[in-house]
Amino acid sequence: MTQFKKIALMRNIKADYADLLDQLYTFLQDSGREIFPEISCRNALSDSKLKFYSYEQLKDCDLAVVVGGDGTLLNAARAFAPYQVPIVGINLGRLGFLVDISPKNMTQSLEEIFQGKYTAEKRFLLQVEVVRDGNTIAEQLALNDVIINNYLQTRMIEFITHVNDRYINHERADGILVTTPTGSTAYALSAGGPILHPSLSALALVPICPHTLNHRPLVIDASSTITIEIDPDCQTVAQVSFDGHANIELAAGDRVNIRRSDAYVKLLHPEGHEFFDILRAKLNWGKQPDSDILSYKK
Amino acid sequence: MTQFKKIALMRNIKADYADLLDQLYTFLQDSGREIFPEISCRNALSDSKLKFYSYEQLKDCDLAVVVGGDGTLLNAARAFAPYQVPIVGINLGRLGFLVDISPKNMTQSLEEIFQGKYTAEKRFLLQVEVVRDGNTIAEQLALNDVIINNYLQTRMIEFITHVNDRYINHERADGILVTTPTGSTAYALSAGGPILHPSLSALALVPICPHTLNHRPLVIDASSTITIEIDPDCQTVAQVSFDGHANIELAAGDRVNIRRSDAYVKLLHPEGHEFFDILRAKLNWGKQPDSDILSYKK
Amino acid sequence: MTQFKKIALMRNIKADYADLLDQLYTFLQDSGREIFPEISCRNALSDSKLKFYSYEQLKDCDLAVVVGGDGTLLNAARAFAPYQVPIVGINLGRLGFLVDISPKNMTQSLEEIFQGKYTAEKRFLLQVEVVRDGNTIAEQLALNDVIINNYLQTRMIEFITHVNDRYINHERADGILVTTPTGSTAYALSAGGPILHPSLSALALVPICPHTLNHRPLVIDASSTITIEIDPDCQTVAQVSFDGHANIELAAGDRVNIRRSDAYVKLLHPEGHEFFDILRAKLNWGKQPDSDILSYKK
Amino acid sequence: MTQFKKIALMRNIKADYADLLDQLYTFLQDSGREIFPEISCRNALSDSKLKFYSYEQLKDCDLAVVVGGDGTLLNAARAFAPYQVPIVGINLGRLGFLVDISPKNMTQSLEEIFQGKYTAEKRFLLQVEVVRDGNTIAEQLALNDVIINNYLQTRMIEFITHVNDRYINHERADGILVTTPTGSTAYALSAGGPILHPSLSALALVPICPHTLNHRPLVIDASSTITIEIDPDCQTVAQVSFDGHANIELAAGDRVNIRRSDAYVKLLHPEGHEFFDILRAKLNWGKQPDSDILSYKK
Repeated sequence: MTQFKKIALMRNIKADYADLLDQLYTFLQDSGREIFPEISCRNALSDSKLKFYSYEQLKDCDLAVVVGGDGTLLNAARAFAPYQVPIVGINLGRLGFLVDISPKNMTQSLEEIFQGKYTAEKRFLLQVEVVRDGNTIAEQLALNDVIINNYLQTRMIEFITHVNDRYINHERADGILVTTPTGSTAYALSAGGPILHPSLSALALVPICPHTLNHRPLVIDASSTITIEIDPDCQTVAQVSFDGHANIELAAGDRVNIRRSDAYVKLLHPEGHEFFDILRAKLNWGKQPDSDILSYKK
Repeated sequence: MTQFKKIALMRNIKADYADLLDQLYTFLQDSGREIFPEISCRNALSDSKLKFYSYEQLKDCDLAVVVGGDGTLLNAARAFAPYQVPIVGINLGRLGFLVDISPKNMTQSLEEIFQGKYTAEKRFLLQVEVVRDGNTIAEQLALNDVIINNYLQTRMIEFITHVNDRYINHERADGILVTTPTGSTAYALSAGGPILHPSLSALALVPICPHTLNHRPLVIDASSTITIEIDPDCQTVAQVSFDGHANIELAAGDRVNIRRSDAYVKLLHPEGHEFFDILRAKLNWGKQPDSDILSYKK
Repeated sequence: MTQFKKIALMRNIKADYADLLDQLYTFLQDSGREIFPEISCRNALSDSKLKFYSYEQLKDCDLAVVVGGDGTLLNAARAFAPYQVPIVGINLGRLGFLVDISPKNMTQSLEEIFQGKYTAEKRFLLQVEVVRDGNTIAEQLALNDVIINNYLQTRMIEFITHVNDRYINHERADGILVTTPTGSTAYALSAGGPILHPSLSALALVPICPHTLNHRPLVIDASSTITIEIDPDCQTVAQVSFDGHANIELAAGDRVNIRRSDAYVKLLHPEGHEFFDILRAKLNWGKQPDSDILSYKK
Repeated sequence: MTQFKKIALMRNIKADYADLLDQLYTFLQDSGREIFPEISCRNALSDSKLKFYSYEQLKDCDLAVVVGGDGTLLNAARAFAPYQVPIVGINLGRLGFLVDISPKNMTQSLEEIFQGKYTAEKRFLLQVEVVRDGNTIAEQLALNDVIINNYLQTRMIEFITHVNDRYINHERADGILVTTPTGSTAYALSAGGPILHPSLSALALVPICPHTLNHRPLVIDASSTITIEIDPDCQTVAQVSFDGHANIELAAGDRVNIRRSDAYVKLLHPEGHEFFDILRAKLNWGKQPDSDILSYKK
């Protein structure tokens, strides 16, 4: 069985690749596949005759190979979400939560994936709309998180949260974020949120530096609809961002409606891939029994 | 339609009731129901001719009315779990997460429940077994949480966690707790855990004063099987408790296996009951916009 | 002995005062004192013939009476710091950490203060300079805190911290703040900082949403010199603010030097004033024994 | 000038030393010093004719060399505190906050210390007395911390805190700890306390899993007297421990009085010793710029 005949290729334009991209390109070409480099690959491949494609032109590809960090894959994932193109991520030597294939295993891992030896995993996205005076002024997807926070000034914003049209609370804080399981190991973690296993159909609402000390992260079902309204009397300018991008300024009274998107991202992993192994590596949990910060307690 | 004909009645034996229990008893009797006071009610009701029953003798009741705090309801819930007797909770003037009917609304709320005007809610329990040298030495149910921590000494314990037989990590800490959504607003919250909405089919693993600072609460699917093994080399005595009760001393090498029980607790609430309203009241969230601890930031 | 003959008066211009300010003015006038209303009092006093003064023109006053919240007093304190004018704070019905006299006790408390019955307290300020390419581009005082954080974008900044020219660390975070004891109950608390007793000669460095989870607040002697340098390679725009005001944009490579100012703020309190009483009131600690969020644990 | 002529030697009895202790002994002997091995060295030195000494018999030594972890040094420090014997700590290959000389630098570092090339540092201890019904039932020293927590059961204790006879609050929690700067990087850190620089004359009160979520670590002057009283109505058994040792059971109504001891511990370090360097190494701060847990935020 032959699969993955048309391969899209994209990269983090800020990174230095040496020959990595060329090696990857050659490997894919030698395997008899058609390769469609996305625009980000311009100037990064030796072959000067290549044509480059926009994401939309790549929508019929069977597989996307993303080279870079988790941020690069997030960008590709949002762009490909409507087209259901499966994605594999190759990191630049530093393990990511999403880009889990290292350059040195690259050809072997891809070989196995081409042979059907892979684990496929669906990650849900958030569909977000920003509403002002009853009109939708922006719509965005987010795979990691939606962050609503203060803008320009170091002052708290004030906002009102509803879940499924039920009033939750009225908060003053630097902001609040709504994270998917995928995003729970990203910014949410630094704001004090819990780790959500990727298989969970759940979201976490995590306050950012809340004014009252008894606000805590709240985990709810992913099928919930969340509305965060900037208090009509709030005098601090707020903003909303999606996976840390596409910041939109929010005025007092604006509403951000967040719900699970119908689209999914399909990630392919080498067989044996396990979230907990990555978590342990990324958070240095593996080193714990060897350290003794608090050694007298042992 | 007449329902709830046989009513079990139990209470927190440490509380002072004045006439509350007698009023409740009279009300239930006047409504034409059969009342079966559990042993905890001994000495608390005026009628000196009453007979008292054990939980097992109450297993055919249609409804249990629990008077006291959340702890009293937790005890009743574990005892009734195998028999599926629905439970309503009447607090002693202080709202609980589980005992949500106040004495002053007591007769009206029960009247409405008897008329079928109620919200029923299922809460899952944890089934826990403690295994030593391959033998099960204890089995317990927990509705809130399973807590494994140090015992006698102020020293860390060392333990190994697996989820679905996958190795998670090796930790030194005061302990770890596994909480249901029901328990997430109890002890887990004071240990830094997230709030899990009661409708979630999820569990949180929350480290208690962990030795390494990058351990964080982890939320996983409630269908997972969790094994926590006391490190065979751990020199600190550990213990396990269930909803804060029934402490069992653990030896090095002992394993605690935790999974969702097949049994459920069925809680009845007055119509209009809403988790977020209780949460807001219990955590004083409603007071936030009026306070200004950090007022200069507004 | 007569003291406090020349009284400066200032207020929060955003608040609604009804007759409060007029009552205060009349009371001060009747006590035979000269009153010098600061410009903020324009339009807030009935007497249409009053003249208003700038802070600089008020530098020879014996006492400043500030009406408003803690933020208002912070502003006055920074302005008066070079002139050593003692300050009393009257709140608008809501206790502050700094404005601790309530309107209903206003005349009695001031009467007593005029009679010499008061507690005087010195609070130190921070002297901050912003250095770019070797040139000082800004100098500011802060009574609460100096906050260095991201600006415009929801991305981490990267910075290097030195204390007394010793390298501390290299961090990625939303930001970092340096707080005095006075500021430790303000923004620092919402970022996870400790409470520092006002009498301490100490500062806390508090990371804001740090990227690595093992960064913790660090308390050092107030005589230390702190330098926070925006990493020369940092691509996120940063800013620095002083008591939440006067935001200055920081470029990569900019340095913020923070040291204790030679100037002090002198706060006058009614006799019997006690920090812990205010702390307990502001943080609702007094209510603890009556609440039972986690009641089963009792 | 010749100094450090009489050297006390002690060790962690649980560790495995191979020849390390013999090498150290030979080195000290060859340097012409008198060596007095403490009882812990029994069975760890090859020379079968050695005599061993109690701490009290070692009180006239000029220097104590401690081999082991921070816990071993803590024990020696408490024992030597009344006698002012300076201490150097040799770790077993793993850096400690207190035992900062590694085996491979051992002879060189000691050589330099003997030549007067060292940094001396004073660390204060806590003097603790436990009072029951007006009688002192125990007195202890602690260099790191005094921990008051629950005992036997997984239930909160209830206690009342006073500082300098001023009422602070009434808390329900797993416990509370009072830490010195020295202890602030030990257990206190895992309970959420701040890091206090060793030069500070300050203490931190750190709640352990507090029932109410707005309790926070509180830093006060080290000259303060702290009284923690177990609530007379508390039904959970409590205990107090000192540097994690010497647990004493506390009854309801017992008081623990904590103040700075007049005695100091004098630590000697190799020249160039710097707290921040150790902190960075122990908390893995040095690794931060290389990790990218939250890489998309960069």
